[in-house]
This record gives sequence, C-alpha cells and structure tokens, in this order.
Amino acid sequence: MENTVTRQVLRIVGDDVQKVKDTVVTEYAVTVKINQEEFVTMVCTPEYVEDMVIGYLASERVIRNFDEIESIWHQEKEGFVHVKTKKVNPYFQQMQNKRYITSCCGASRQGFVFANDALVAKKMTDVHVRVTPKDCYRLMRALQNSADVFQQTGGVHNAALCDKSGIVLGRMDIGRHNALDKIYGYCLRNNIVMHDKIIVFSGRISSEILLKVSKIGCEIVLSKSAPTELALELAEGLGITTVGFIRKDAMNVYTHEKRIQLQNDSSLNS
Amino acid sequence: MENTVTRQVLRIVGDDVQKVKDTVVTEYAVTVKINQEEFVTMVCTPEYVEDMVIGYLASERVIRNFDEIESIWHQEKEGFVHVKTKKVNPYFQQMQNKRYITSCCGASRQGFVFANDALVAKKMTDVHVRVTPKDCYRLMRALQNSADVFQQTGGVHNAALCDKSGIVLGRMDIGRHNALDKIYGYCLRNNIVMHDKIIVFSGRISSEILLKVSKIGCEIVLSKSAPTELALELAEGLGITTVGFIRKDAMNVYTHEKRIQLQNDSSLNS
Repeated sequence: MENTVTRQVLRIVGDDVQKVKDTVVTEYAVTVKINQEEFVTMVCTPEYVEDMVIGYLASERVIRNFDEIESIWHQEKEGFVHVKTKKVNPYFQQMQNKRYITSCCGASRQGFVFANDALVAKKMTDVHVRVTPKDCYRLMRALQNSADVFQQTGGVHNAALCDKSGIVLGRMDIGRHNALDKIYGYCLRNNIVMHDKIIVFSGRISSEILLKVSKIGCEIVLSKSAPTELALELAEGLGITTVGFIRKDAMNVYTHEKRIQLQNDSSLNS
Repeated sequence: MENTVTRQVLRIVGDDVQKVKDTVVTEYAVTVKINQEEFVTMVCTPEYVEDMVIGYLASERVIRNFDEIESIWHQEKEGFVHVKTKKVNPYFQQMQNKRYITSCCGASRQGFVFANDALVAKKMTDVHVRVTPKDCYRLMRALQNSADVFQQTGGVHNAALCDKSGIVLGRMDIGRHNALDKIYGYCLRNNIVMHDKIIVFSGRISSEILLKVSKIGCEIVLSKSAPTELALELAEGLGITTVGFIRKDAMNVYTHEKRIQLQNDSSLNS
C-alpha cells in the first residue's frame, strides 16, 4: 500500500480554475487482534505497521518485552495485524484508560492522567548523554532535511531517534504517536540501547508525546514546537530534558538543563 | 482554570543564555461520568468543557439530542464532568470502537473505520449554501485573525462555524477534535441550524475531522491544510464539499464542487 495517492482536484488561483493532479496522503486503518481477539483499531500511514503495533503494545504495557510476542503477521490488504503472545498482562483489562486518581486536582501532581502510564514510564535519574545548543540546531536541521515529498502533501509528523552525530532512525506518520511507536517497535525488535539516544520531533510536545519518550527510555527530547504545561510537569518528575522552539540558532530549555552543555561549562575546550 | 501558565525557561539565542518567563499552554484532563459510571477521560484546553462533552457524546451517539441530558455539572478543580441522561443508547456498549468490517480492504469502501460512525454521519444531498473562492479566502483570513496570543504559544487547533458573512462561533483546543466538539455542543444546546453553515478549520482534514463535520451537519469544510485520502473518500460518499490549502488567493477543491460558485457560472453579475 502506498503512502500517497494521486487524484484530480480543482485548483483555483486568482481567477484561474484548472483541473490538476494532486498528491494526497493515505490514512490506513488497521485492527490489532491479540490471540484472535479484537483489541484496538489504529489509523496510520501504511508503512512500518508491525513496528508500530509492537511499540504501541509495549507502551500500553500489554507486553513487557519483544520476547513475549510469539508471532506477528500483517494482513495488509484486509487491514489486520495478528499478534500471538505468550501471556497478556493480567492487570491490563482493569487498567486500560483508567484515570490516575489523586486527591489533588484534574491531573495528578505527577502529571499522570492514566494509571497505566504511571507504571510504564521510566524515571531518568542519570545523565548518559549531553548536548550543546549547536547539536540541537544540527539535529533539528537533519530532521527537516530528511522529510521528503510525502511530507509536503500535508502535515505529517516526523520523529527521529538520534545520537549526537545524527539520525539513527527516522519515521513519519499522520498520527502524532504513531511515528514514535514505529521507532519504539523497531528498537525493541533490534535490541537498540536507548538511554544514550535523543528523540527529535517535529510537533508539539504534549503529555502523550512526553510519556512515549519516557517509555522508549530516552533522556532528551527536542522539538521545533512548544511543550504543554502537563508535559513539562511530567518531564520534571521523570527527569527528561525538554527543549522546544528550536529554530535556526535559538531554542528554549524547559526542564533538566543539566544535559545541555553550555560554552562556559565546558572546561575541556578552554 | 487558565488556558496558559507562565514558567521560567532557559532561552538560548546564539551564545546568549538567559532565564526568561515563558507562556505555556495548559493540558487539562477531565473524566466524564455518565450516570455515575466512568466513561472516558479527555485531555483538552480548559474552556467550554461542558460544550465539548455534549458534542462528544452526541458525535459518539451516546445521546441523540440535547434533551436526553437531564443534568450536566463540571466539577472543575477535580477534573470531572458528571452527566445524567434519561437513557443510554443500548447499542452503544457493543458498538464502541468496533471496526466497520467489509469484505473489501482496510477501511470500508465508504471510508468508515468505526461502525458507530456509519450510523451517526449524515449524508448531505442538498445544496443549502454555496461559496465563491473569495468567500473562502475571507473566511480563512477571519479564522487566522481571530487567533489570539494563546495560539502563539504553540500550535492549538482553531475551528469556526461560519456563515457567508463571517464567523458565528470560534473555538480552539490543543486537541484536534475538541475544538469541533465544543462547536457542536454549543449548537446542540442552543438549537442552531447547521446545514447552511460552513466549518473553517486550521488543521489537516483527517477522516475523523471530516466525520465530525458530517455529524455536526455542515455541507462545506474549509482548511488551510491538506485532506487525507480517507477523508476525501468519506466526503465523496457523504456529499460534503472539501476545500484545502487555502492560502491568500489560492485553494484546492477536492469534492462536491457544486457548492463552489465560480465567476463564469454566476450569471447574476454578468
């Protein structure tokens, strides 16, 4: 299945009206069946679908690691992914989408909205990787340069797993979380060490995106856009360095600046 | 609760590093309880929350009209909306999130992904409203002008219900669908006639957005961004006029161009 299709549209520019061919992104609906039971239906860009499902199941704590999957089969045309697991987390049924209730306010003081997230999110207490502002600008440029024609057709979300030298793995999707699930699934499958990597994302850092980063196990997230307050509350608590509004040679550091290496604290070069 | 909060960030521009105050958007989690049972948790911008819940319940077919709601109470600080209904649609429990299965392919040929959507979406066979390209440019400018400082803080989605003369009702939210649910809920509460109105939206027209427009009961949707193929498939089937990529004095008409009034088919002025 293709990521885009061509169709005829009426293109109007000033008084000029023409029938032209236009490229439109595909939205692909896929239903995940676990041990033959319908589990969830996801709408996505139709590439790396198995990785996306693996990443999604891990981040929802249906599986704890890739070994728990006995088989996975993408029945592409019909729109199914069939997953066979050794076991299903017994708590899952009760926990799914259950509110994380505290005595305090709307969201919990830790920022968790769903109880399940509080169990899966990893707390980053160490510093395995540090970046300079120049690293941040360079990685954001790399993300933007990696976007191809597909992206031009309309606002897909781009995500990349990076180390300081550049992009290790780039994925895109019409769904905000799907791009990160595709990265997560690939890394679980291939046993990639995550804590020294950096997530670079094209869109806004919402609480859900911040949680995905934490579940994947990265310590730094870089974005072209803004974070939300709930995401920053989570980032504070989970120990994640959040950098937003990265544009050319400017950026905002919102949380855990200890992983941002500034000129005057780098004694190595002086 | 405020739509934004102020916090301190590390602002880096070139070699200059400063601690400055920055405005960050709020993400508010609210749990909907129907007849005292936990139903869904939504994450949104904390304004017009009751309208959003009403619009959501109608578009998910939990209620068929506003009269079915006996009482609604927003317990703001704790993050709950308590809804008391006369009855709950008996089919709802079985239908929720169930895939609309056909013998064909991933999504159905009609474009429906979820069975429930096929029941709630309205088919627009008549033409109650027509717009010229100039109307489209003007309404898109009005949407952009109506966005305030809040929007500057980071990529909220703007939606407006318009007639040909301008904006009737504008709403924004960090969640794509929430802005439209807020419009829908307001209109249900206030018995506003919808079929002669136009939805103007800042973001991409995905299948979910197109379905919301159809459920609200509008015949025309205008967007600054691109539609997806699945959205266009739905728009074809549901009779909705879809216009995308509206920029200054250019636009693309994707479906049902019968509601676009071009210079050479307007015999009134010639």
